[in-house]
Amino acid sequence: MTTFEKTNTVDFNEDKTALRIIDQTRLPGTFVVEDLRTPEEFWDAIYHLKVRGAPAIGVAAAISVYLCVRESQAETYEAFCAEFDKHKTYLASSRPTAVNLFWALNRMEEVVRAHEGATPAQVKQALYEAAEEILRKDIESCRRIGEYGSECIQDGDGILTHCNAGRLATVQYGTALSPIYIAKEQGKTVKVYTDETRPLLQGARLSAFELSQSGVDTTVLCDNMAASTMKSGKVQLVLVGADRIAANGDFANKIGTCGVAIMAKHFGIPFYVCAPLSTIDLGTANGDGIVIEQRNPDEVTTMWYKERMAPENVHVLNPAFDVTDNELVSGIITDYGIARAPFDKSIAELFAKKEAEEAR
Amino acid sequence: MTTFEKTNTVDFNEDKTALRIIDQTRLPGTFVVEDLRTPEEFWDAIYHLKVRGAPAIGVAAAISVYLCVRESQAETYEAFCAEFDKHKTYLASSRPTAVNLFWALNRMEEVVRAHEGATPAQVKQALYEAAEEILRKDIESCRRIGEYGSECIQDGDGILTHCNAGRLATVQYGTALSPIYIAKEQGKTVKVYTDETRPLLQGARLSAFELSQSGVDTTVLCDNMAASTMKSGKVQLVLVGADRIAANGDFANKIGTCGVAIMAKHFGIPFYVCAPLSTIDLGTANGDGIVIEQRNPDEVTTMWYKERMAPENVHVLNPAFDVTDNELVSGIITDYGIARAPFDKSIAELFAKKEAEEAR
Repeated sequence: MTTFEKTNTVDFNEDKTALRIIDQTRLPGTFVVEDLRTPEEFWDAIYHLKVRGAPAIGVAAAISVYLCVRESQAETYEAFCAEFDKHKTYLASSRPTAVNLFWALNRMEEVVRAHEGATPAQVKQALYEAAEEILRKDIESCRRIGEYGSECIQDGDGILTHCNAGRLATVQYGTALSPIYIAKEQGKTVKVYTDETRPLLQGARLSAFELSQSGVDTTVLCDNMAASTMKSGKVQLVLVGADRIAANGDFANKIGTCGVAIMAKHFGIPFYVCAPLSTIDLGTANGDGIVIEQRNPDEVTTMWYKERMAPENVHVLNPAFDVTDNELVSGIITDYGIARAPFDKSIAELFAKKEAEEAR
Repeated sequence: MTTFEKTNTVDFNEDKTALRIIDQTRLPGTFVVEDLRTPEEFWDAIYHLKVRGAPAIGVAAAISVYLCVRESQAETYEAFCAEFDKHKTYLASSRPTAVNLFWALNRMEEVVRAHEGATPAQVKQALYEAAEEILRKDIESCRRIGEYGSECIQDGDGILTHCNAGRLATVQYGTALSPIYIAKEQGKTVKVYTDETRPLLQGARLSAFELSQSGVDTTVLCDNMAASTMKSGKVQLVLVGADRIAANGDFANKIGTCGVAIMAKHFGIPFYVCAPLSTIDLGTANGDGIVIEQRNPDEVTTMWYKERMAPENVHVLNPAFDVTDNELVSGIITDYGIARAPFDKSIAELFAKKEAEEAR
């Protein structure tokens, strides 16, 4: 029997012939692990959010595109490339707004291009190794975020989080929830308050599931209860993830994050963003450069409900993300250390540290 | 055909033999007006939230207890009192946490006690007049809140509100939404942003319904979208209701209000509370004295959903209200004028004004 505790969110199966995923559309009610083997199954898993969370999508895409060409009968490099490109284009169409999907597929394409003239068997082997490397690096990067972040956690702390930036959004550990898992390994006891995170309820469905499955004391609250929970003294720390961080420390994350940051500042509660350095886009100067996707209004008015819960003749807002200003951020916990204000300087230092480490 | 525009939320029917209500459990999908005639129907309407909103419940209770004894066959004052008391106790059990329910029933009981020795017919007439008076005063009080509040509204303003403190919570006009209706009468055009207000969605279901039915440009958003909506510059004013206001201006209102106030302060947006002076409890010094009711966790995890949306083994918070500190309040818009900081002084002045007006 497969248990959640021992299952990576995305991975190869044992004999490396399938993409093994936890089907997140069935959570929290049913824990199902699926082995996927066809291009159509890979595409469907990303499209229907069976796999979600930027890092997890990236890893799934890398494994998927390798598996698509694993049994290729192409006899030349050129014929193999043509097959690879077809599958890459197909997989890329599964979720056109997911940055990590493209990042992973492009990384895999680079591997193909770097092997110009090699035999298909050689390219297949290189792609397999690249997918394993992306998987391994995701685990390592999240583990390091957790180790740095756990220094911010005191035994007995109440920690509030928003959306799901946990194990279920990565291979293991997560980003925002990784410090909590590492603190638990260190013997610290914490209570976690997870905003339900309307409209799609990733907090109530996913964060609450993975935290409680891991034995963490977990409390679900509606998003609008965060202020009174902070006011009551229950919260000593806020940890959230990030979809994209600008060079000055402004960052985009799930809708509602900006409000949580403002409330934390009001109540004097430290507010930390957790993300790998790869989430920081040095080409974006500040939050003004981040475009926010508007999603289908039906997610707000109807999706989870038995019947429509707002009248027909009204407008509906449904931005997927909001932008939080760096002045509200106590620190950015990355896989290379914690950046603090002034962020332009501290972020540059972390990138320098990363380069130095990679050069060794 | 009865239309929403012409229907009071609670009222007598034409020949004063029934309680006429808009069934709010059917909104926003279906507009149904019901005439209720039996004690069991009155009790059920309050218990099942067909009538909700503190002022509307008070008016409904006053009319109901009168109708319960309207056809009393009692021949003596004492026998009539016994019947009245029985009905009062029964109606009071319909919603034991609703302050206005008790206020209205006690007010009606005072009328009975004030007529000691009168004939049952005389007491019935006095009760009928008292119910009509409570109804009339609710309309008048809300209208005055709207007139004072409309002075805070500029043509073209975007106004954010939370929960439903509108027509559907009173007989007409509402409290927080009354300034919007009066501004519209004055020819001002506004856009209203209504938080959906989890867990029971009074904003999406009720405020959005009554505003759009009244021709107001209405936008529904999830509670966690308020910060980004404010940040985008769409909101020039916040108007909310209040369940209970302390002598220093701290106030309790629907869960989430405190967070909205903190965000409005952060973005420099005026934040006004709208309530009749009767909502101010001079016996409560500040917000610390206000006890917050915790409601059934199922409202958060299951109620509106096709299936349970959080795992079973987690804690759930479901406070009905939160308390907002007076330092976050730009003003309290009452039926006797607008109180501003320092609130202890300005509130005392409004009470003095009310006393002087009633003494005239």
